Amino acid sequence: MPASWLDIAPDSPFGIATLPYGVFGTESTPAPRVGVAIGDHVLDVAATARALGSSLEGLLTGPTLNPLLAAGPAAWRDVRDAVTTWLTDATLADRVRPHLHDRASARLYLPFEVADYVDFYSCEHHAANVGRIFRPGQPPLTPNWRHLPIGYHGRAGTVVVSGTDVVRPSGQRKGPHDQSPLFGPSTRLDIEAEVGFVVGVPTEPGTRVRVADFADHVFGAFLLNDWSARDLQAWEYVPLGPFLGKSFATSVSPWVVPLAALAEARVAPPARDPEPLPYLRDVEDDPWGLDLRLEVRLNGHLVARPPFAQMYWTPAQQLAHLTVNGARLRTGDIYASGTVSGPERDQRGSLLELAWNGEEPLRLPDGGERSFLADGDRVSITATAPGPQGSVIGFGEVTGRILPARG
Amino acid sequence: MPASWLDIAPDSPFGIATLPYGVFGTESTPAPRVGVAIGDHVLDVAATARALGSSLEGLLTGPTLNPLLAAGPAAWRDVRDAVTTWLTDATLADRVRPHLHDRASARLYLPFEVADYVDFYSCEHHAANVGRIFRPGQPPLTPNWRHLPIGYHGRAGTVVVSGTDVVRPSGQRKGPHDQSPLFGPSTRLDIEAEVGFVVGVPTEPGTRVRVADFADHVFGAFLLNDWSARDLQAWEYVPLGPFLGKSFATSVSPWVVPLAALAEARVAPPARDPEPLPYLRDVEDDPWGLDLRLEVRLNGHLVARPPFAQMYWTPAQQLAHLTVNGARLRTGDIYASGTVSGPERDQRGSLLELAWNGEEPLRLPDGGERSFLADGDRVSITATAPGPQGSVIGFGEVTGRILPARG
Repeated sequence: MPASWLDIAPDSPFGIATLPYGVFGTESTPAPRVGVAIGDHVLDVAATARALGSSLEGLLTGPTLNPLLAAGPAAWRDVRDAVTTWLTDATLADRVRPHLHDRASARLYLPFEVADYVDFYSCEHHAANVGRIFRPGQPPLTPNWRHLPIGYHGRAGTVVVSGTDVVRPSGQRKGPHDQSPLFGPSTRLDIEAEVGFVVGVPTEPGTRVRVADFADHVFGAFLLNDWSARDLQAWEYVPLGPFLGKSFATSVSPWVVPLAALAEARVAPPARDPEPLPYLRDVEDDPWGLDLRLEVRLNGHLVARPPFAQMYWTPAQQLAHLTVNGARLRTGDIYASGTVSGPERDQRGSLLELAWNGEEPLRLPDGGERSFLADGDRVSITATAPGPQGSVIGFGEVTGRILPARG
Repeated sequence: MPASWLDIAPDSPFGIATLPYGVFGTESTPAPRVGVAIGDHVLDVAATARALGSSLEGLLTGPTLNPLLAAGPAAWRDVRDAVTTWLTDATLADRVRPHLHDRASARLYLPFEVADYVDFYSCEHHAANVGRIFRPGQPPLTPNWRHLPIGYHGRAGTVVVSGTDVVRPSGQRKGPHDQSPLFGPSTRLDIEAEVGFVVGVPTEPGTRVRVADFADHVFGAFLLNDWSARDLQAWEYVPLGPFLGKSFATSVSPWVVPLAALAEARVAPPARDPEPLPYLRDVEDDPWGLDLRLEVRLNGHLVARPPFAQMYWTPAQQLAHLTVNGARLRTGDIYASGTVSGPERDQRGSLLELAWNGEEPLRLPDGGERSFLADGDRVSITATAPGPQGSVIGFGEVTGRILPARG
């Protein structure tokens, strides 16, 4: 791993091995453009390519990552190699440096134009916790859970970038003791800590993506908070699934970590029983379990450390399932893992689980207590992964603050 | 109602009172452009506006209806008035005529760029039939059904225009006697005859569209076939709703009928019991029930005449519900009514209902029998509505043919 000529703190999430892509603007030039995070800076990659006369400029121009996403694995490799060279070859430093901007003061935009958004439900600990809470006395997992990655389509138009405030949604709810449904602001507003994946290379209608071809289509990973109004969701979701309980907002991290940066994080997924159908089988020696370690903070307090490594279904299996019926992929399709929870209480990725449906409220170090989110609360999710030579790959954060419901 | 200088058959679905919008190309000039159907012709409206020096040209240029959709009700009225004048003022005939193209040989494209796609479930007869079939011995409607228009997000990227072939999807299914799920082509491929609505004017995040403001946001209506693999759907849909059973294809008619053409079709919706919550109440003297009469044909044989007038929830209520949690609307958002079925057997809008889950196969006049779709089957849905002065407003058809599953 070559060193950068730039001064980067050893504990920076954005060392030379990370190089995540985003879309940024500056105070003087707010127009959105593609950037790569490096240390405390953002590199304007299109401007750098132009300055250096690189032929890659065309992939990097424009207000979203979509042209780069569509270009495919060979182009992704070329751009990553070029950016690495720009930031490590000291003879280029004087020509690259003018295109570095202060990251702390940069404005970050939604990095991609979202096509379709699918949310999976692939963490066994989470699904079992939810089953125990909502269907006590019954088997915690539904009969299909171990046979396929359960998922549903979410609302692409309300995917927002980290930092966007979230207005508390209103809607119908009906508690077990209510005669009829009530209307009003959600009283059980929750988070779901998830990992998202973005599709670059599209497919033709009627074709499938095999588990083995995952990295030919998916560009990279990011963090996602699937805000959830549990009271709206519980009343509406039978028989067609979540709708208004989820569709008000879904926040994503501004930095997309390319799969190439996650080579060291790849781990074998857990054993599955029963063995999945052939189209869902892992490829031997080509695992897509990912050792990502999430951290969830509520008003600055660390409240959970969900481990991604033990997700039952990998993102490669999720994509194979999503397309097995011939549904085409488009550049900018995103899909999320489902809430990430571990076996321990402090590894749970939702307040529903952390406070066990309000029965065991979460105590915050500032003396506060939470079963669900209060107005003004801020939730931030970050993650790290092992990188080459002991380095750390960081995901940056996805954060959002709750504003009171509107009248 | 002024008469056209053009010769239009009295029984044409596209008389001077319909004027639906679509996107078409011709053999010599295949590039997609906005057209209005009139009799046996398509009028190239951007070219006509240009020829006549109309300032409306800007709204009509481009490969989709989206710029016109986004322009809002005043612009929609202006364009409809202008097109009406072009086609009725005999002094303009010589300048308009060169921009008429033969409709039968025109290639029709997806008329809008779809943002999000939501599918509702708002027909009481359909929902009750499905409940009786799948949950015998239990109340046919779920407890929430009469309190809110149940809906879910579908896959926007697989919405296709009428005429697109549909490849039979493969996936997992598990019948009541199967030990474990099987993988293969769907054996229970079905249709759902629905009416769709397209949003023109977007909203800001956190705002709602009241029932009274429906026509300020929705541009028009079209027909939709929500192809459904019942075997995939039955196995996958608990607890998060339909996914692969629906996401392989959704077909829409190429012609969008503006709400302005449906003034005569507006009828009072059925009585609701219990009374809906205030945000869902109809506005007095401003009903959005619509007397649309659908016809479903299988291989040319009329198999059902679903009546839209008795839908429990109107499109105005559906939009109010969809946005009550603050979810923003985008230009090109579409939503569908849910399967339209009437109380009579020959009014049911799905094969599941028409053949009662295979117990009463549909007998076709050609001697064939169907419980679900066979490879090679073609399904076509059309609709008419009452127009001014005894005229008929036609929707044109949404049609599609089933191709065998791919290996």
